[in-house]
Amino acid sequence: MATVEVCLSPALLNLYDLGHSNVVVTDVLRATSTMVTGADLLVKEIIPVSSVDEALDHVGSANTLVAGERNGVKVERFDLGNSPLLWKEHSELLKGKTMVMTTTNGTKAINMALGADKVYIGAFLNLDAVCEQLKKDGKNVLVLCAGWKNRVNMEDSLFAGAVAQRLATEFEIYGDAAIMAKQLYEADRHDLFSAIKGATHFKRLAHHGVEDDIRHCMKENESSVVPFYKDGAIVV
Amino acid sequence: MATVEVCLSPALLNLYDLGHSNVVVTDVLRATSTMVTGADLLVKEIIPVSSVDEALDHVGSANTLVAGERNGVKVERFDLGNSPLLWKEHSELLKGKTMVMTTTNGTKAINMALGADKVYIGAFLNLDAVCEQLKKDGKNVLVLCAGWKNRVNMEDSLFAGAVAQRLATEFEIYGDAAIMAKQLYEADRHDLFSAIKGATHFKRLAHHGVEDDIRHCMKENESSVVPFYKDGAIVV
Repeated sequence: MATVEVCLSPALLNLYDLGHSNVVVTDVLRATSTMVTGADLLVKEIIPVSSVDEALDHVGSANTLVAGERNGVKVERFDLGNSPLLWKEHSELLKGKTMVMTTTNGTKAINMALGADKVYIGAFLNLDAVCEQLKKDGKNVLVLCAGWKNRVNMEDSLFAGAVAQRLATEFEIYGDAAIMAKQLYEADRHDLFSAIKGATHFKRLAHHGVEDDIRHCMKENESSVVPFYKDGAIVV
Repeated sequence: MATVEVCLSPALLNLYDLGHSNVVVTDVLRATSTMVTGADLLVKEIIPVSSVDEALDHVGSANTLVAGERNGVKVERFDLGNSPLLWKEHSELLKGKTMVMTTTNGTKAINMALGADKVYIGAFLNLDAVCEQLKKDGKNVLVLCAGWKNRVNMEDSLFAGAVAQRLATEFEIYGDAAIMAKQLYEADRHDLFSAIKGATHFKRLAHHGVEDDIRHCMKENESSVVPFYKDGAIVV
């Protein structure tokens, strides 16, 4: 029986065997929610880069937009921030574009996961779609929570628990992190937005007036895309 | 208002500011439960050492017993294992002794926490006693979960949540790890032993026939001692 495990922080990733797993990277607030939205809006690809400098090198390139944030705020010279709702507002602009993206936590986590068999982009927005793909693949699964600067956070842990809950009948839930995340999700799933309102990152982001964004990111199954990483870019 | 934070794995300890905190180290199954038991049995002191070799250097020393385990099993030349119930059986032998102790996770976590203002030894067995001491001190609190080889585990997370629950009215619960641990504890506190039966480490230890020990370690407030670290030893 294949296993599903949860890594609650990128700083713990060295404890897991990526080589034999499919990894789902999640940064619910908001990098992977934004990526799923971008895939839905038919961007050509999303190139995750780890530093602002790398991203700035792409500003002004043909058919390319640069997006992202540091500490929750859009970087000044970037074309767009890290907001699913904002990306939706600009859907016509985004269609067919190469998006170069860097965020405080999410894009780094993606780049750390590249030793895996496959790297999927997961968020509540595409929860069931990702889980169906994982079932189809049938390989060991690791959910990698991007966290906040290596600290464990609630929204990513809840998403990891949601994946464990969806896979529980066909996979072995392995390790206490997965067991605890699943238990938390099952307790909070009836109202994820309320659960997240008590969390630290909610308070951090709420200062930036993005409560609508957060509310959107906590919705399950708004999308059926399953973005994955291939040859330097996230595609569908 | 002082804060209470939770570090779910020693591998994340560098994210926290030890210098301004009192740290409660916990390794519920079973190092800190055994230490609390030892303090209750009036051992003179417990010297936590990180390696088996260091511990072996003390075998045969006057008025000294060497105790501990690796991977859940007593090391062959040690006088005692890492079991609260076994220590209780040998209470007459232990009284007044210097105990030299090494375990897979707990003693290492203690030695990692030494930069803190005070390092307390916490377990369910002395939960309320430790929390009363923390309230009396009034300083920021960090609960350091020893985990299992740097992996997050359920029993230590539940204990951390219990501390957060006890301190919630007088301290700010800071960070999602503390919020999640508290939520888990509140869901499971009516029957901690059942909660732990689903956990990975329970299954690991149960192979060694220590279910009675585990049941004992999940009992709250069997003891009122508050062991702490001072000048190389754990004392009361």
